[in-house]
Amino acid sequence: MNWENHFAARTQRFRRNTVREFLRLAGQPGIISFAGGMPDSNMLPVEEMKVACERALRRIGAKALQYGPSEGIPELRHLIAERCICAGVTAENVLITTGSQQALDLIGRVLVDDGATVAVQNPTYLAALSAWAPLGAKFRTLDDSSASKTSMAYVIPNFRNPTGDTMDRAARQELVQHCEAGRIPILEDDAYGELRFEGEPVPSLLEIAGTLSGPVIHVGTFSKILAPGLRLGWIIASTELIAKLVQARQAADLHTSTFTQYTALQAVEDGILDYLLPRLRAAYRQKRDAMLQALSITMSEDVTWSRPEGGLFIMLRLPAGTSGRALAARSLESGVLVVPGEEFHIEGGTETVRLNFSHPSLAQISRGISLLAESIRTGSLEERCAR
Amino acid sequence: MNWENHFAARTQRFRRNTVREFLRLAGQPGIISFAGGMPDSNMLPVEEMKVACERALRRIGAKALQYGPSEGIPELRHLIAERCICAGVTAENVLITTGSQQALDLIGRVLVDDGATVAVQNPTYLAALSAWAPLGAKFRTLDDSSASKTSMAYVIPNFRNPTGDTMDRAARQELVQHCEAGRIPILEDDAYGELRFEGEPVPSLLEIAGTLSGPVIHVGTFSKILAPGLRLGWIIASTELIAKLVQARQAADLHTSTFTQYTALQAVEDGILDYLLPRLRAAYRQKRDAMLQALSITMSEDVTWSRPEGGLFIMLRLPAGTSGRALAARSLESGVLVVPGEEFHIEGGTETVRLNFSHPSLAQISRGISLLAESIRTGSLEERCAR
Repeated sequence: MNWENHFAARTQRFRRNTVREFLRLAGQPGIISFAGGMPDSNMLPVEEMKVACERALRRIGAKALQYGPSEGIPELRHLIAERCICAGVTAENVLITTGSQQALDLIGRVLVDDGATVAVQNPTYLAALSAWAPLGAKFRTLDDSSASKTSMAYVIPNFRNPTGDTMDRAARQELVQHCEAGRIPILEDDAYGELRFEGEPVPSLLEIAGTLSGPVIHVGTFSKILAPGLRLGWIIASTELIAKLVQARQAADLHTSTFTQYTALQAVEDGILDYLLPRLRAAYRQKRDAMLQALSITMSEDVTWSRPEGGLFIMLRLPAGTSGRALAARSLESGVLVVPGEEFHIEGGTETVRLNFSHPSLAQISRGISLLAESIRTGSLEERCAR
Repeated sequence: MNWENHFAARTQRFRRNTVREFLRLAGQPGIISFAGGMPDSNMLPVEEMKVACERALRRIGAKALQYGPSEGIPELRHLIAERCICAGVTAENVLITTGSQQALDLIGRVLVDDGATVAVQNPTYLAALSAWAPLGAKFRTLDDSSASKTSMAYVIPNFRNPTGDTMDRAARQELVQHCEAGRIPILEDDAYGELRFEGEPVPSLLEIAGTLSGPVIHVGTFSKILAPGLRLGWIIASTELIAKLVQARQAADLHTSTFTQYTALQAVEDGILDYLLPRLRAAYRQKRDAMLQALSITMSEDVTWSRPEGGLFIMLRLPAGTSGRALAARSLESGVLVVPGEEFHIEGGTETVRLNFSHPSLAQISRGISLLAESIRTGSLEERCAR
């Protein structure tokens, strides 16, 4: 069989996930990776999850290994609703997903029609584009008001992947009002909101809307605050929308693992987040500071960068004419992985790279940024000579 | 927001999963459920999974809670390849999925084009239809050779859901030859193959094809032989097809839980299947026998049923003119859940219901079949009087 002859037309719109491709290299010895969006492995609660699993299975028994409800186990839905600040949110408004990537996929299946336009921040999380492009979505930037009718807006208000930027309150209010008036669904992806280590929290789009009867759909995840290997995320939405999403999810994978749901529930009920979140914030603040310091020491004046108040990422803007893609390739030769910022852009971004500071050690940050600065200088020189 | 106004066109092709709807009722006290496809909860290895989780986390550490490869962890891919009888299958041919439902979803995304025709057994697993209908698939019966060009054939050769039937060797050979000649991909869904408790095993379609260069894609799962709550399934296919499926799966949910993968791997390496499979086969044989006996004692002569040599299901054919759907509703009033066979049919099947024998206890089987026979008699009487 020549399988290519059998591929459906939509496969031509599949995007390679460059970050995931890079991650194949990230585990190799001697490599310093600023490429992924992975939590610090030293902060993953191995002992606590052992205990939680043992306690969950003892308490719940076979039910934790049996088929479960498509919406998620009631206790975890309830817990997510309780943790949500917005008034009136109950367990009925929560759908547990197999990581927040599945939340994006399911919302796409239900709300993104073939040929529909999705308004996104530029740059934005690239796997959101990967999820919706095969459905026939077209993308425009959120601030491009000249464009055609918008089916959905997709926003990462806190510590956006890939820039680390946060939308201020005024911008959030304006967006919610605009979408309320135009009846445009807003997907609020809040993967990083609980990882604020500096400054004042800004109310979520859902809090600003104040109701699930409005345009906001809220997506969250345990990946960055507990463990990504559990693959646990959630959607908070109106019950009308949840009902349709449940149909999509039954076709997708029936339901999320009851085993991981009951284990995570047990861990959270035992207080793991109270213990882990302050430690994560302190550790990531320290790492961000280390990266900012290394950047200010090593980079030439024509390199600039974002200064996030939380999350996992810093975006580097290279000297004019320096290709982020070429830099990523050159940097790899010196053992440092970075992702070309272009990957996250629907337009522009060729002169940027994304840096992750949560996963590497402090020593790797210092050494890696120094090597990266070297690669930028070499590149600038070569590119000047080539002219 | 009136969300219905925002639903994509494909949502009109979403199917309600009647079995999953029924399962909401199944947990209620006093209800006897023959509705699901659930393993016997008493056979779920609670203690063993506690031990496996503890050992896996001790041995693997943080890696078992971190992001992992989209294809699945190498050790589990290797194990699945080793368990596969077909020559030449290696870890590179294996994609670990979030249950075998996700295998169906991903294969659909890659191979089922809008308007494509998928040939299925009639009846067949209803959630396969749910997975592919929203993609624009049309369905025809496998033996309808008059129909248009087929994009894919979908077959459950062993103990088919919902009938319990098994394709004999000659039929398998004919199908493989036909699809080889016509270059038609065959999706072999082997969810139940290891649950044979009587008779001689028949070689799988993949074994008959003898190679992954042919038309066969093989799908398996731990749901029926270990625990469905883990949500672990797999696809065995040519590396060319695996590469494209990996792109689809990155957009779907990045990867399957590393936590469940390492835990299941540990359990299998510790020999859990050697212990569990013989016990499952013995228990399900006993339950099938109990159901067959109860049927032969209680049912009138104009009711017939299948006699499976493995798996989880028996199909009941009702007296002419008796609606399976009406029976399911009537039976529910007496506390017995069955699924109308029509749900699984792309045509016909109105006079059938599907019975599951793996989940109910022996006492429930005896009592439930007796109540069901009563409901059939009442119905037949009413329907005769109504004429």
